[in-house]
Amino acid sequence: MGKSTVESTAQKTLDTSLDQAVVQEDVVTEPLDVAHEVASIQAVPHVGQHTPDSLRLALIEAQYALRDTRDKPRGRGVVILMSGIELAGKGEALTQLRAWADPRLFKVHARMPVTPHSPVWIKDAALLPEKGEAVILFGNWYGDLLKAHMAYKQEKKSDKKKKDKDSKDSDDSQKMTGARFQRELEHLHAFEQDLRAQGITVCKCWFDLSWDGLQKRLDEVDKSEERWLNLHGLDWRDKEQYDQLQVLRTELGSDWINIDCSDASERNLKFGHIVLDALKTPRLPSPTAARRWQLAEIPAPLLLPDSSVMEKETYKARLKDAQKKFASLIRGRGDRPIVLVFEGMDAAGKGGAITRVVESLDPREYQVFPIAAPEPHELRHPYLWRFWSRLPEKFNGHVGMTIFDRSWYGRVLVERIEGLVKAGEWQSAYAEINRFERDLTSGGVIVLKFWLAISNDEQARRFTSRQQTPHKRFKITMDDWRNRKRWDDYLQSAADMFEHTNTAEAPWVIIASDDKLTARLAVLESLNRRLESVL
Amino acid sequence: MGKSTVESTAQKTLDTSLDQAVVQEDVVTEPLDVAHEVASIQAVPHVGQHTPDSLRLALIEAQYALRDTRDKPRGRGVVILMSGIELAGKGEALTQLRAWADPRLFKVHARMPVTPHSPVWIKDAALLPEKGEAVILFGNWYGDLLKAHMAYKQEKKSDKKKKDKDSKDSDDSQKMTGARFQRELEHLHAFEQDLRAQGITVCKCWFDLSWDGLQKRLDEVDKSEERWLNLHGLDWRDKEQYDQLQVLRTELGSDWINIDCSDASERNLKFGHIVLDALKTPRLPSPTAARRWQLAEIPAPLLLPDSSVMEKETYKARLKDAQKKFASLIRGRGDRPIVLVFEGMDAAGKGGAITRVVESLDPREYQVFPIAAPEPHELRHPYLWRFWSRLPEKFNGHVGMTIFDRSWYGRVLVERIEGLVKAGEWQSAYAEINRFERDLTSGGVIVLKFWLAISNDEQARRFTSRQQTPHKRFKITMDDWRNRKRWDDYLQSAADMFEHTNTAEAPWVIIASDDKLTARLAVLESLNRRLESVL
Repeated sequence: MGKSTVESTAQKTLDTSLDQAVVQEDVVTEPLDVAHEVASIQAVPHVGQHTPDSLRLALIEAQYALRDTRDKPRGRGVVILMSGIELAGKGEALTQLRAWADPRLFKVHARMPVTPHSPVWIKDAALLPEKGEAVILFGNWYGDLLKAHMAYKQEKKSDKKKKDKDSKDSDDSQKMTGARFQRELEHLHAFEQDLRAQGITVCKCWFDLSWDGLQKRLDEVDKSEERWLNLHGLDWRDKEQYDQLQVLRTELGSDWINIDCSDASERNLKFGHIVLDALKTPRLPSPTAARRWQLAEIPAPLLLPDSSVMEKETYKARLKDAQKKFASLIRGRGDRPIVLVFEGMDAAGKGGAITRVVESLDPREYQVFPIAAPEPHELRHPYLWRFWSRLPEKFNGHVGMTIFDRSWYGRVLVERIEGLVKAGEWQSAYAEINRFERDLTSGGVIVLKFWLAISNDEQARRFTSRQQTPHKRFKITMDDWRNRKRWDDYLQSAADMFEHTNTAEAPWVIIASDDKLTARLAVLESLNRRLESVL
Repeated sequence: MGKSTVESTAQKTLDTSLDQAVVQEDVVTEPLDVAHEVASIQAVPHVGQHTPDSLRLALIEAQYALRDTRDKPRGRGVVILMSGIELAGKGEALTQLRAWADPRLFKVHARMPVTPHSPVWIKDAALLPEKGEAVILFGNWYGDLLKAHMAYKQEKKSDKKKKDKDSKDSDDSQKMTGARFQRELEHLHAFEQDLRAQGITVCKCWFDLSWDGLQKRLDEVDKSEERWLNLHGLDWRDKEQYDQLQVLRTELGSDWINIDCSDASERNLKFGHIVLDALKTPRLPSPTAARRWQLAEIPAPLLLPDSSVMEKETYKARLKDAQKKFASLIRGRGDRPIVLVFEGMDAAGKGGAITRVVESLDPREYQVFPIAAPEPHELRHPYLWRFWSRLPEKFNGHVGMTIFDRSWYGRVLVERIEGLVKAGEWQSAYAEINRFERDLTSGGVIVLKFWLAISNDEQARRFTSRQQTPHKRFKITMDDWRNRKRWDDYLQSAADMFEHTNTAEAPWVIIASDDKLTARLAVLESLNRRLESVL
């Protein structure tokens, strides 16, 4: 090997063309040489404690240490968000990182900015790391927010100039106004805080470049690169826009790490150190449990559900009316997605109630997800992860409705009762769930949650009937009998759940379910009332 | 319970409004009564061996029997495709099925038709059932094909009428011409045949309705239903279009089961029977192994890879040129997605070669997937399933490139050698893989596959070096040493793989890799040659 790799890197002139990315390609192929390593310490500008060579080993060690937490209860994940000024060299920094470390142990997802829909994190949520993983989001929710807010500002400016009357169609409700920008940021920070509590380190890097530096690079940019430049709809030759962006980015949050990109080697080294720190960040301690958890009072309708019985003929007529009304309400609801949650004791009649809710609908108008115990790979994710990808989507101008037959409330019901999570974890889950649902509702989603309440005696009757009826025998398992023994625990957990998660935006409705017909009708009618009140 | 449910159903008049779907709601809640069951046998029109009551029990039993195969090696999955004439009552039939059986054990995916991109099955591929699952695709690839081909026919017709010159932009290459329609169908049938071989029963139901029946239902259709009618861009009042569709659907394949929908009860019963049959269909026997498998001759470049060493300076210059050329080629390639496959012995240099391929690119231009052993939930799917969702997508007018560091060829390499699949399975995998890759290439995807060939001695040197070098030590595991002992098996498997999967559309390139620099350059240069020849 002719001359020191590290020296040659340090000597390289600044070059931002991607065609000539500053990557120490040969470092990957040469075995480490101790003498060489010592020499290089003096040769390179210091950006952190490591030289490129020692950083490399440290990165790889950290990668494998992280991966080893994959199936550990206290396993960790890492997500790196890369944003910044155009031409600052994010791509080259990432290429260098891949060359230094084991590239197979970084999952990179790179994408263009999109128009953000609330909650803005939902776009990349499915990509978030499981335990043992490091994920790099090159292009992410912050880029979407910045783009949308900058576009709003530009539009306002040109509106002012024009002062024309026909701008009455500029309905601000869908636009990224300053107020919405602030609100989305607050929700993002809360979301990220919840990720951290679930073992995911969130590391945010801002690749910064001065106005002069940017202009110089724009002068030299290769033709084939030009198409990346217009991604944010920004004019990078406009000083005012540049300044505006720099002000905005200070509002993104104080946990962003600034990377000065005037020098390519220093930029790469600094990024490498930041990633190293992120990979090594220990998991936050489990949330502490309350010294004495304040048990909620068990609501009367849970202890003794109304048991009045409905006449079949009355039921049929009213159900038909309610279903008709429901169909017409949801067909006229515009672009509001709907999320319905059904919880309740075993055999409370969740399935039957759901069937009546969807009976009058076309299968394209809804989706039902029965929720069972998580799969091993789902357990490597935050407990809400498996629900993120099941939320209703807008597709082909048609907005979905998702119905959960059991849900994320398993965290504070079965997982609490069976001791699958620590006290501090289920206790903090109420606030996490509230934030999750608030993110949905503030994005326009209609959320309604049903608890089907049956009495202990009625459950016993149904269990027995299930065991005696051929086509129902499958419905009953040993688990059901075991759960039944914890009847009081479930009641208490349900009571605590109502106490902490019955919000104005996403309320609980307790349905007396000892009489199935009464319960099914009550679900539909309260659904209709809710839709009428929020639409 | 007043009168027999079954009788009341039989007496119901035909009613296609979704608001009043013909669903035997109360059947779900009442325990079976033997006397009642006997009575109902005479009361309902016979469509199959079962009455609604006995069908119900049979369905539930079949659902649970299917679910029990979930983690069995010979487990099965079922996919039901629902298509047909508008207003025939697909939605009601599905609602009835959900009411009869355990609705939690059907995964229903309902969607609108979309413009089909080849391969047309890719749109729903991720939704296909895992072992133990029954999936209902309400709206599926056949609907997309029919819609696109009908639209093409309508357009041709109006073009003829207009006879205007400005229809020169009607570029047929993207359109669903008759020839393309036929070709897509052939590919679909081959795809479905492969699914069946992997344990997935594919059941296709055509909900049929006569012209007169359709017109009558159109007269009575509820306003809120109208928006479903225009989904296929068809005018259901146009006899010519109706006839055209009925002709086309006979071309879909002889394995479609026709369901006459003139009577709602009979329709529902028939659909229930069809689904029951599908749930009970045994898995196809494993493909038989050849009596004597013809071993391919091992190509010389595998036995003795060229070991000439490249000068570092030459390499640097040529690599830079090749990367520049590569970047410009892929940036000018239009809408052609790219799939690259890297295979080779351990330590052959796959990772290093991939790093050089992507070095000059922006991270948004490619995605690298390192492929490890499948997860437990992945093993419940056909072996190609986990690759379907990783294929390059078109997004934001930008077309992706996906690089696989190991791939589906694991089926005929490690899985064959380790005895993880039967001989018949890996032997039939060559043709399955060829069909998969042909589906990609005929959809415009550029596929190129690299085998990095190193000598046995060179592998030994690299293993030793890896163990002695701190930042490489992680790269070597017990598995690597074990694989090394099977060197000759790997060589033979690679030879067989070339023999059977080196197609004109998706060729293999063997890269002599004893010298890393030579190998990296060769990969890029042959990649460039391939791109030049196909673009």
